[in-house]
Amino acid sequence: MEKINIAVAQSGGPTAAINATLAGVFERAFESEKIGHIYGSINGIEGMIKDDLVPLDSILTSEHDLDLLKKTPSTVLGSCRYKLAEYDPTDSVTETEYMNIMSTMEKHGIGAFFYIGGNDSMDTVNKLDRYIKSVGKDIKVIGVPKTIDNDLPLTDHTPGFGSAAKYVATTLQEIIRDSRVYSIQSITIVEIMGRNAGWLTASSCVLRANGEPAPHLIYVPEAFPDGFDMNKFFEDVDRMMKRYRAVIVAVSEGIVPSDRDYVKTGADAFGHTDNSGVAKYLEKCCAKRFGCKVRSIELNVMQRCSSHIASATDISESVRIGKAAVDCALAGDSGRMMCFRRISNEPYRVEVTSEDVALAANKEKFLPDNWITADRSDITMDALGYFLPLIRGEITPEYRNGIPIHFRLNQ
Amino acid sequence: MEKINIAVAQSGGPTAAINATLAGVFERAFESEKIGHIYGSINGIEGMIKDDLVPLDSILTSEHDLDLLKKTPSTVLGSCRYKLAEYDPTDSVTETEYMNIMSTMEKHGIGAFFYIGGNDSMDTVNKLDRYIKSVGKDIKVIGVPKTIDNDLPLTDHTPGFGSAAKYVATTLQEIIRDSRVYSIQSITIVEIMGRNAGWLTASSCVLRANGEPAPHLIYVPEAFPDGFDMNKFFEDVDRMMKRYRAVIVAVSEGIVPSDRDYVKTGADAFGHTDNSGVAKYLEKCCAKRFGCKVRSIELNVMQRCSSHIASATDISESVRIGKAAVDCALAGDSGRMMCFRRISNEPYRVEVTSEDVALAANKEKFLPDNWITADRSDITMDALGYFLPLIRGEITPEYRNGIPIHFRLNQ
Repeated sequence: MEKINIAVAQSGGPTAAINATLAGVFERAFESEKIGHIYGSINGIEGMIKDDLVPLDSILTSEHDLDLLKKTPSTVLGSCRYKLAEYDPTDSVTETEYMNIMSTMEKHGIGAFFYIGGNDSMDTVNKLDRYIKSVGKDIKVIGVPKTIDNDLPLTDHTPGFGSAAKYVATTLQEIIRDSRVYSIQSITIVEIMGRNAGWLTASSCVLRANGEPAPHLIYVPEAFPDGFDMNKFFEDVDRMMKRYRAVIVAVSEGIVPSDRDYVKTGADAFGHTDNSGVAKYLEKCCAKRFGCKVRSIELNVMQRCSSHIASATDISESVRIGKAAVDCALAGDSGRMMCFRRISNEPYRVEVTSEDVALAANKEKFLPDNWITADRSDITMDALGYFLPLIRGEITPEYRNGIPIHFRLNQ
Repeated sequence: MEKINIAVAQSGGPTAAINATLAGVFERAFESEKIGHIYGSINGIEGMIKDDLVPLDSILTSEHDLDLLKKTPSTVLGSCRYKLAEYDPTDSVTETEYMNIMSTMEKHGIGAFFYIGGNDSMDTVNKLDRYIKSVGKDIKVIGVPKTIDNDLPLTDHTPGFGSAAKYVATTLQEIIRDSRVYSIQSITIVEIMGRNAGWLTASSCVLRANGEPAPHLIYVPEAFPDGFDMNKFFEDVDRMMKRYRAVIVAVSEGIVPSDRDYVKTGADAFGHTDNSGVAKYLEKCCAKRFGCKVRSIELNVMQRCSSHIASATDISESVRIGKAAVDCALAGDSGRMMCFRRISNEPYRVEVTSEDVALAANKEKFLPDNWITADRSDITMDALGYFLPLIRGEITPEYRNGIPIHFRLNQ
């Protein structure tokens, strides 16, 4: 049997685990007798269009390289936000793009292409797979999920989410300690990533497993289909201020306060047109309303790149799903998205399956409504059993001069 | 010989190491035959004024408690920003305060008081010591430094600084990875704590020891005695954009751009009166000037409370200086601030000494001018040898449910 070469690419926003999936694809491909060369496509699908590939088998040359790669955040191959258009032979731009991809595939003898990404990337996998089948070529296209947002359908959870959740829990707990030092009343508002789906914000409830009541209020976008009522918010905060000296609020970046019409007009109630987030806005409102010490904190990109506090469960699962993707292609499947299916919470067990990628492309998965409390300001204890296994276990970074070492492509 | 009791308090802004110093004071006092009970004063000097003490010897009851305490950020005893006034017998408020402190001291048989804090706290140590000597009492008052700002004179560096610097370096490196994923030009501006002193911002140069050129621009307050010229800043950024696709800028929170007159007028050049930091301001200016992708990130309180990535050197030195403070008081000294004196960089060796606290009170120590490059936009390699030993070594948090365990007073 003739060997095939493969190509792998990374797409969308960075996570702490996306390189672990790349390492998983590489490891399984490297040990397979059916696979020859392993190429990395630079900047996602852009590398396939532009024929910008690197020979991973001469870059990742030791166990140590692979170990470092698994502990390196973001995407060593670069990423893109490029969304492949539907194939249209009457549109010369699209036609050329598909031709260029096929030309890159053929030039390098690519028999399978692995795309590690989120919703948009699954759309690209779907389109490319359908095109390849339509022209009768035998090239497998497999999607491997990644996103800290955990908003992909079909899979129990997404690689990258557990590490982001572990970072959020660890950091929030430290912020809670910090917020309690003074004897005065204070409010601390922490903004967590997630525009439409509140998975990561909701995961902050894991601190309760260790007896920590904060965050006292948790606001997710799914809880407010009719808008985020500021009067109700003030009531919530006021109630918590009666119970706690240092009130901690976790809020999803996707929350849009009812009196904040900047989305429509470009300006908020303060007349500002700046791009500051919801936490900064709520900070100003609370300072005006309650007159106490108020602080807002954006966890920002640290949520998606803090590999030094990655979840060992997440990293090992991310490697595992990358390996399974190679198995899936070698078994002859194409147009599939790799998925986790949870078998049990305690003991935590998952299996890796695959589903038709068309069912995932461009779709979002939201937090179950029964995990949101009746008053919409908190997460129920039901969610704990889902979140806890995903943040368990620690990786040990390798340090040089007191700083974690990252794997770098160009060194 | 009759035993004395002691009291210890924590003051000022939190750090990841201030509880380690408390643990050091406790451990040395607990093993001393000259010391009976060990009290903790709640919320710094406020606890002494209000007689709000807790019996630490019945709270810290195991090696495990002490181990957790050393790994817990912020102040378990609470803190305060309260500055003791100069003793003035003609002012009844001040008179009452000093009387209350002495009453608390006498009620609990306190023979030595340890105050862990920054510049303001050393002022309190100085005033209290002089008062006690003036009334002929035999109570030792010792200051133990702590601040992530590293701006205390007399000591080579301050406990808490090394952990903050390790957090900044680790996180900046992850942000650098995150910033490089796309193929487009971008600028990332990271705001680091330090209003007047740029030690923490400057410490970001440690990444160069591992071959990382970023941050490409490092701005500290000491470099701009005549104001931060925005035209020069744009020139610096422009120059770096020609060399790097993803430009990383580290900026001290204390930098005040020349065209930002909010300090005087309450509004910035955009007409905003908000309290957003300098990074957000520079982000807006760069977006307008260069039209490329610009992001600003505030490392916020995480810089001072991220004990999960604390420097082992910092934590063990913080314990050590706390122990030395007890030795200092038992040797009969008072009105002293404990200090580190650096003997050598490689191998790194320090000794603990003490100095007259009056020489430290209310004074700030600034970055040496010869560590700032001639063009004021970077830190010289001379600084590396100073910073590197302070961030070395890792502590291992104890985890439960995937989240570090903190010591909590009220559990």
